[in-house]
Amino acid sequence: MNTPKPIKHAINITRAQDFAAWYQAVITEADMAEESGVRGCMVIRPWGYGVWERIQALLDAQIKATGHENCYFPLFIPLSYFAKEAEHVDGFAKEMAVVTHHRLIADGKGGLVPDPAAKLEEPLIVRPTSETVIGAAMSRWVQSWRDLPVLINQWANVVRWEMRTRMFLRTSEFLWQEGHTAHADKADAMIETLKMLEVYRALAEGPLAMPVVAGEKPENERFPGAAATYSIEAMMQDGKALQAGTSHYLGTTFATAQNIRYQDKDGGQRYAHTTSWGVSTRLIGGVIMTHGDDDGLRLPPAIAPQQVVIVPMFRDDEGDAALLDYARAVAADLKGTLALGEPIRVKVDTGGMKAQIKRWSWVKKGAPLIIEIGGRDLAAENVSMIRRDRLYTDEGRLASAVITRADFAAGAGALLEDMQAALYSEAKARTDANISRDVTDLAKHFKGGEDKVIGWAELQWARPTGAALDKVVEQLKALKLTIRNTPLGAAPADGACFFTGAPAVERILVGRSY
Amino acid sequence: MNTPKPIKHAINITRAQDFAAWYQAVITEADMAEESGVRGCMVIRPWGYGVWERIQALLDAQIKATGHENCYFPLFIPLSYFAKEAEHVDGFAKEMAVVTHHRLIADGKGGLVPDPAAKLEEPLIVRPTSETVIGAAMSRWVQSWRDLPVLINQWANVVRWEMRTRMFLRTSEFLWQEGHTAHADKADAMIETLKMLEVYRALAEGPLAMPVVAGEKPENERFPGAAATYSIEAMMQDGKALQAGTSHYLGTTFATAQNIRYQDKDGGQRYAHTTSWGVSTRLIGGVIMTHGDDDGLRLPPAIAPQQVVIVPMFRDDEGDAALLDYARAVAADLKGTLALGEPIRVKVDTGGMKAQIKRWSWVKKGAPLIIEIGGRDLAAENVSMIRRDRLYTDEGRLASAVITRADFAAGAGALLEDMQAALYSEAKARTDANISRDVTDLAKHFKGGEDKVIGWAELQWARPTGAALDKVVEQLKALKLTIRNTPLGAAPADGACFFTGAPAVERILVGRSY
Repeated sequence: MNTPKPIKHAINITRAQDFAAWYQAVITEADMAEESGVRGCMVIRPWGYGVWERIQALLDAQIKATGHENCYFPLFIPLSYFAKEAEHVDGFAKEMAVVTHHRLIADGKGGLVPDPAAKLEEPLIVRPTSETVIGAAMSRWVQSWRDLPVLINQWANVVRWEMRTRMFLRTSEFLWQEGHTAHADKADAMIETLKMLEVYRALAEGPLAMPVVAGEKPENERFPGAAATYSIEAMMQDGKALQAGTSHYLGTTFATAQNIRYQDKDGGQRYAHTTSWGVSTRLIGGVIMTHGDDDGLRLPPAIAPQQVVIVPMFRDDEGDAALLDYARAVAADLKGTLALGEPIRVKVDTGGMKAQIKRWSWVKKGAPLIIEIGGRDLAAENVSMIRRDRLYTDEGRLASAVITRADFAAGAGALLEDMQAALYSEAKARTDANISRDVTDLAKHFKGGEDKVIGWAELQWARPTGAALDKVVEQLKALKLTIRNTPLGAAPADGACFFTGAPAVERILVGRSY
Repeated sequence: MNTPKPIKHAINITRAQDFAAWYQAVITEADMAEESGVRGCMVIRPWGYGVWERIQALLDAQIKATGHENCYFPLFIPLSYFAKEAEHVDGFAKEMAVVTHHRLIADGKGGLVPDPAAKLEEPLIVRPTSETVIGAAMSRWVQSWRDLPVLINQWANVVRWEMRTRMFLRTSEFLWQEGHTAHADKADAMIETLKMLEVYRALAEGPLAMPVVAGEKPENERFPGAAATYSIEAMMQDGKALQAGTSHYLGTTFATAQNIRYQDKDGGQRYAHTTSWGVSTRLIGGVIMTHGDDDGLRLPPAIAPQQVVIVPMFRDDEGDAALLDYARAVAADLKGTLALGEPIRVKVDTGGMKAQIKRWSWVKKGAPLIIEIGGRDLAAENVSMIRRDRLYTDEGRLASAVITRADFAAGAGALLEDMQAALYSEAKARTDANISRDVTDLAKHFKGGEDKVIGWAELQWARPTGAALDKVVEQLKALKLTIRNTPLGAAPADGACFFTGAPAVERILVGRSY
């Protein structure tokens, strides 16, 4: 019996060897993004941006279906707005890009400098988030209970100065949507907060095939100024948590700061209760670290810019034209075919590179189905199909299945839907397997640093606050751990607080995180 | 015979009284945009942003259909990139937002100031356009002739510091798309430049129903660094020109500055030829000034966020529920019905405002078809239909037509298509009527300042360059005129140069502009 040869994978470093280096290599090899030459900012390349466009399209439809309207607010926020916020908000973050001048002049040495004569009277901040400037608009829009709720959203770029950046996960500039709503009372605002959390959960677990735990963040992890912060947390393949989306009930903090008041039915003046919620290009990092393998990215079909890529295997001879025609005909067969409720997205790769290079470039990019068309396929009206989620045979050879053109066209939609479901199931099983519910010694459990997949621990606790919570946070911090969230819908507590021994009131997830 | 009473229009100032004030009033009354409180920046409100979303969707499809891919480049551009550009580009503009600090600190007086300890070593510029940063990426991407062409586009916000701003037409921050391409040679780059000009012409004259003249800008109006600049120019109702989109052939200027070089088939190193092209939220200003009337905006159905708005005329009594049900049924009748190749966009206005107020708010917003549902309509299975493009009868009364529900559903698609065509025809006839081809004395022709619609003059000229062109430009400037462009496909010149008397080589359009 022959021992299968070890597979030489397409990414030159494996997840097991160095997860962080593997992540960066996949981003490069899959043409997702690259360094821009501008500190902390990246270039999102077409394939990466195509994934973002898919996420945008699917989420935007849900944002609208839940009654929100898109609008657009200024990139710049006057410094004084933040001063107002700082008065109201403990933990107000100050790392922001500050615009101080509006003109360049020659420095007399062949260079350019900010013109001292064009110094702004009041500096402008490049928005890190838009609660303040949208709150100012809401205070103009809201006069009466009839004006509520206000339900708006914007797709925008924001900037938070970051010292250590990592592509998609933490960059100084990133793309996101930020929803902002104002309501008559807490009950209505809480319904909104949880509704959008659920929209995010469904986005993550549906199109992104990325299992998440939706829950409430502990007090110390709340968005500054929020009365409650909820998140979806996803477990990456290295066991770390990625906070993949947040939804905040802001109480009346921002309404007070921005004077968002309304006359109620009884004539009284009340502050509105506001919410905000956002997801960003960080989701793309989550997709890579959830589904990628040692051959690159594996994209869930729902968010793949192309779901089927057809590669005619040109040989630079007179047969190429017929191969191209046949490739186009195979693509045309899919016209009108749906997968996941949308027309199948198919591309014929007409590029001039060698067929082998093209094949592996699509493998690394994670196109779900790669269809190769060679002379024998053409002659027999077949196609050679590679499933990105089952790349190798048991013997470690590339698994390319020859099927008839007709069978491929008839089955492509269902196959893509199966792949979508399978990617979710695989990640879900891994996540579930890596949540430990019997941890008694955190230090021992989380020993082994970052080399080994440890996952999360589910603990019960008494939900301490103030100084008691600080103590817990410190204890966790010493182990590089944080509380991810209190899962919604978890089983009721039935034991003692892991930290204090007092009767527990709820369950929390603890882990390392991005 | 009774004289019709003068109509009391919905906008409190007419176009004839004060076009600029009317424009601003329409923007406010149609809920398109508002002042943001941030100097030079506006808030684009949901209805205005909805128009932008429609323009984006339609144009994005064309950008992709012509082979381009979307990506995303940094908001910030290091100062040194501009220094490099300034070396290469005469007329380099310097009014830009300059980021100099990355942190705020307390000033000890309860306020915040930029932290002197967090001054950037190299200031960052908020992109006014992205040739430099995209050129830097292209120099990484392009090595061989096989890498060409590079065909990319981004949807982004840009900032150009403006002293005098006007909503949608000239704001410090605006939204746009910018296409950037690199090609092996001039011929290929020129094909691209003109292809995208044609995409813009088709967008303007199709979905926006806004007639334009596509042509080449004179040398003095070129984008700094461009070898040739083309534009589409639209005539507003006051006769002024709006430059509504531009497409530039940049020659090798930026390729030289950014070192975009490739190895040709013969092994030689050559500079790529680049192009760039863009349209912005300025188009929305063009739509308002092309189609608006004294009752507000009139939106071409192709870009109306809602094409049919159904207003149940509630009377705050027990009959309201049946009215609402009927309104929803009328909306449901349109399901599956297409107009202009897309499903009809229909909204039922369930708002609590008085029916009269709702009606006029949709008139001002320019919804193409406003359907009112009252008790009599319900009883007779009718609807009362207001066409936004024919608001009044000859007697000056609101033209509301009672038609059967079935007839409405059967005819809505064709009606919207007719309205789209009629808006274009109306604007086209007005534009054509206001281009004068027999002007012999510009001062006399353009007398009357801004009070009267004068339009444009088509002149023949010898296409002077350098100092001779400067003289022409000065002469025109004294009359507040500029050369808009040299229309493509105009009749050949057959006379003498208007300015010099030399044999003319082409025709140009001259007019006042935004």
